[in-house]
Amino acid sequence: MTLPTIGWIGLGHMGAPMAANLARAGFPVAVFNRTPREVPGARVAATAAEATAGADLVVTMLSDDAALEAVLFGAGGVAATLAPGQVLATMGTVSPKLAESVAARLAKRGVDAVDAPVSGSVRQATDASLVILAGGTAAALAHARPMFDALGKRTVHFGGPGQGARAKLAVNLMLGVVMQGLAEAVAFGESCGLDAATLLDALGDTPLASPVVAAKLAAIRSGDFAAAFPLKHMAKDLRLVSDAAAEVGATIPAAEVARGSYDLAIKDGFGDLDVIAVLQSLRKP
Amino acid sequence: MTLPTIGWIGLGHMGAPMAANLARAGFPVAVFNRTPREVPGARVAATAAEATAGADLVVTMLSDDAALEAVLFGAGGVAATLAPGQVLATMGTVSPKLAESVAARLAKRGVDAVDAPVSGSVRQATDASLVILAGGTAAALAHARPMFDALGKRTVHFGGPGQGARAKLAVNLMLGVVMQGLAEAVAFGESCGLDAATLLDALGDTPLASPVVAAKLAAIRSGDFAAAFPLKHMAKDLRLVSDAAAEVGATIPAAEVARGSYDLAIKDGFGDLDVIAVLQSLRKP
Amino acid sequence: MTLPTIGWIGLGHMGAPMAANLARAGFPVAVFNRTPREVPGARVAATAAEATAGADLVVTMLSDDAALEAVLFGAGGVAATLAPGQVLATMGTVSPKLAESVAARLAKRGVDAVDAPVSGSVRQATDASLVILAGGTAAALAHARPMFDALGKRTVHFGGPGQGARAKLAVNLMLGVVMQGLAEAVAFGESCGLDAATLLDALGDTPLASPVVAAKLAAIRSGDFAAAFPLKHMAKDLRLVSDAAAEVGATIPAAEVARGSYDLAIKDGFGDLDVIAVLQSLRKP
Amino acid sequence: MTLPTIGWIGLGHMGAPMAANLARAGFPVAVFNRTPREVPGARVAATAAEATAGADLVVTMLSDDAALEAVLFGAGGVAATLAPGQVLATMGTVSPKLAESVAARLAKRGVDAVDAPVSGSVRQATDASLVILAGGTAAALAHARPMFDALGKRTVHFGGPGQGARAKLAVNLMLGVVMQGLAEAVAFGESCGLDAATLLDALGDTPLASPVVAAKLAAIRSGDFAAAFPLKHMAKDLRLVSDAAAEVGATIPAAEVARGSYDLAIKDGFGDLDVIAVLQSLRKP
Repeated sequence: MTLPTIGWIGLGHMGAPMAANLARAGFPVAVFNRTPREVPGARVAATAAEATAGADLVVTMLSDDAALEAVLFGAGGVAATLAPGQVLATMGTVSPKLAESVAARLAKRGVDAVDAPVSGSVRQATDASLVILAGGTAAALAHARPMFDALGKRTVHFGGPGQGARAKLAVNLMLGVVMQGLAEAVAFGESCGLDAATLLDALGDTPLASPVVAAKLAAIRSGDFAAAFPLKHMAKDLRLVSDAAAEVGATIPAAEVARGSYDLAIKDGFGDLDVIAVLQSLRKP
Repeated sequence: MTLPTIGWIGLGHMGAPMAANLARAGFPVAVFNRTPREVPGARVAATAAEATAGADLVVTMLSDDAALEAVLFGAGGVAATLAPGQVLATMGTVSPKLAESVAARLAKRGVDAVDAPVSGSVRQATDASLVILAGGTAAALAHARPMFDALGKRTVHFGGPGQGARAKLAVNLMLGVVMQGLAEAVAFGESCGLDAATLLDALGDTPLASPVVAAKLAAIRSGDFAAAFPLKHMAKDLRLVSDAAAEVGATIPAAEVARGSYDLAIKDGFGDLDVIAVLQSLRKP
Repeated sequence: MTLPTIGWIGLGHMGAPMAANLARAGFPVAVFNRTPREVPGARVAATAAEATAGADLVVTMLSDDAALEAVLFGAGGVAATLAPGQVLATMGTVSPKLAESVAARLAKRGVDAVDAPVSGSVRQATDASLVILAGGTAAALAHARPMFDALGKRTVHFGGPGQGARAKLAVNLMLGVVMQGLAEAVAFGESCGLDAATLLDALGDTPLASPVVAAKLAAIRSGDFAAAFPLKHMAKDLRLVSDAAAEVGATIPAAEVARGSYDLAIKDGFGDLDVIAVLQSLRKP
Repeated sequence: MTLPTIGWIGLGHMGAPMAANLARAGFPVAVFNRTPREVPGARVAATAAEATAGADLVVTMLSDDAALEAVLFGAGGVAATLAPGQVLATMGTVSPKLAESVAARLAKRGVDAVDAPVSGSVRQATDASLVILAGGTAAALAHARPMFDALGKRTVHFGGPGQGARAKLAVNLMLGVVMQGLAEAVAFGESCGLDAATLLDALGDTPLASPVVAAKLAAIRSGDFAAAFPLKHMAKDLRLVSDAAAEVGATIPAAEVARGSYDLAIKDGFGDLDVIAVLQSLRKP
């Protein structure tokens, strides 16, 4: 079986290891990043449209709605070059509305689009253990599945266009609230005069200690808040959650207040650190 | 070595299996509950004071401040019967202020008190895998340790009187926020039209899936909201958290809003169900 | 002096009395509403474009972004018919972003736009005592000023396009929080067993008793929650506030939580009643 | 008619002008303050008990529960000196629980107590235009009424002991939320780049402009945040509100979040400034 050719746009902290995994697995990959970057085994294209020309699968791994809209439909955008038979997979976290709108606009050109954001962070991107949360037609998903299988451990199909984006927002809603809860528990305990190390150990010893909580407890213990998942991205995702919740009438008070807390942490200068650096904002003064 | 004798007050869903574990481990145990109840291997006393008379260790496993205050210092209260050499362990979740006040009042009688609430639910109480979060003097803790070892897998000493209570509140703060976050993620996803079963599976497949989250996902899947940890107790504990946070100046916005959400769920009639039944309140109408 | 001709689109509970005031003041007015409606002294046009053809001033009084976008730029939209010399005034509450975008798109056609939402409700619209909060060029504002003078008691110029919309959001932010605070005070007092009438009198007797608070106290006293300002519009405006605050990094926790409360009230079925009907939602069960 | 004699305890920014008004009106007044302070026309007592010995009416104007409890029931407390025929009026803002408990404990001595906190600030205290919110028996209230008439413009009887305290909390709940809403509107507008002075004028021109809002707009305009009502007292009162709401099951999300905002402002160093200085906390960084 011949593996499909891939045109990959976006080589950030997630996109780079993902594209590298595809090249390693034997997919012919052309990559493009605004700031040019090498990916082992992949061809570096000079423009986005050059990366995607003729590719069986076009993938975007971009950080927000504006970037995706610009790459696809801005000046020199990729969308105008796509033709029936090509499939677009948008794998960054974008608004469900934009995911739907992208699919609708491409459908007019006979091109299928799948929104396929991922659950997992840099580590899972690197060892290909992501969970892919997909929305789109069954046909488009089948087309992209060999690639998804090389990127993650499982692909879940949630329905038509936008439903992958919505599932991702549900996951990140929970992540944002859990991180906030962990930070508040630590800040509360410290303010009470509990020994910090003992408290972190005790929290790690409860049935609340998921893998992500364990990792963040270690970060707090070491004081190393380098971003595994940047706090500012969490704030952005919770804003998407808030907008989507308003559209469907969902009640999410803790997520709303967590968003406010992350926004304050950004004002306090912690936006580029890891999401759990919200603790630093709660700790002051 | 002779095991210490135990006078045990409070045989609710946690107290009963804990006292049974002590009897099974060979401790001489006398028990008292307002509504009389049998515990295998233990002697049932007619009054609280009869259960505790002469016991090396006196244990209370009561649900709130009022109950503890009444049992100890109300009419016919146990405190007046305690003498130097006896140690009191209060194992329910009460306010740090009351824990401190109990210790101070008993100290005047030459009696040591330990606040020793537990992390874990009915399952951990039954198979003696609780984590005990203790505050009190080192001497009092040493006195009670053989009993703690028979009740749980680990005892963590957080400092003087009240610090066990505060550590427990930190743990329950996080639990309350995490449960709220899980419920909001599910309610959000359902409102978005995501297939509920698929969403629950996906949430269980993320690195957020701690043991307690896995258990609650199963409860949501089955629709069985019987209380492992009653929602009304969570609301009560978050009120203690709020009061304690105000005293020490801790900033806990998500915990505050989660408390409000549990309070609404109680008004909606879900107080006696499990904490995760807050989802039922978010789902309506 | 000849009064400018007016093409007026939107005859809801605010637009109808405003257009009638203009006709009464001698302005030649043509009106259009999706559901046709008479306005004393005004000509009823069959389409939006017919109402605005050749008018010196084109006014929209529409309830949300989608309606304004459709009327201006949708199929058969008014924007395509506008020519240099005509000025557009958008007087409904829309997002600052859309106000800016409308102005930018019309500027390409040589047409000036003013965003000019109003402070005040049906009573102020009827007796021409509105306060008009305007954004746009000084020239465009001068062009529209005779009309604004006939609609309100004062026009405040806040800056370029979008600044009128932002000022309106600041006012409605405060309104939304004050109404929520009033409702909570009443609900709290009632839950405490205070006599409701006595409490309403006492609140009306404090220095908190603004005209709008006095009007709402009267509504609560009578139990008549007919909409002076529909609750669902308040929820919509607070969503615009939330989005605008996120863009500029403003911290508005009470407005965010008030929005959540209005959203819950809509779910409870009170969206078409007056904004103060949020009390009914707080009162239950 | 002979005016009753008054024993007055507490001469803070409210108590001092109130006691002075009584002396000016001809009441025989003895005053006590922890930090001795003169009041024109009043006798300064060396101890609280000396001030209250034999007085027809004993009044406390103290800032919190702890101070009231200590003055009445602490070492050398006043309560032990009270005899049937004397009436106690507690006029500071204290918890309804303490108001009830004071009344119950004094009733055992045959002494009536009225909780009678006031609506109004220093200006109203000075010109005797306070509104007095009273709880207690009708007989006790009748006894105290001549004094209340000399202190304020109106006395409202809300019911038995504690109901005056609860009414006061309802008023301050609303005050706290309104001040927060005003501060958020200003902070939002400033972040949007609106001219601050223009915005303050516009807010003062809306039907939201109550006397207290007008006063705070003036404070913001001048930048003079000297305390008319200290921010830290507002935070304390909203904590009492929160506790009381939890007891009766009232839903007050905006008040809860406003309390959090005031708590943050205290951490930011604004606790001794006026309540509207919460704006300074929202403005940063």
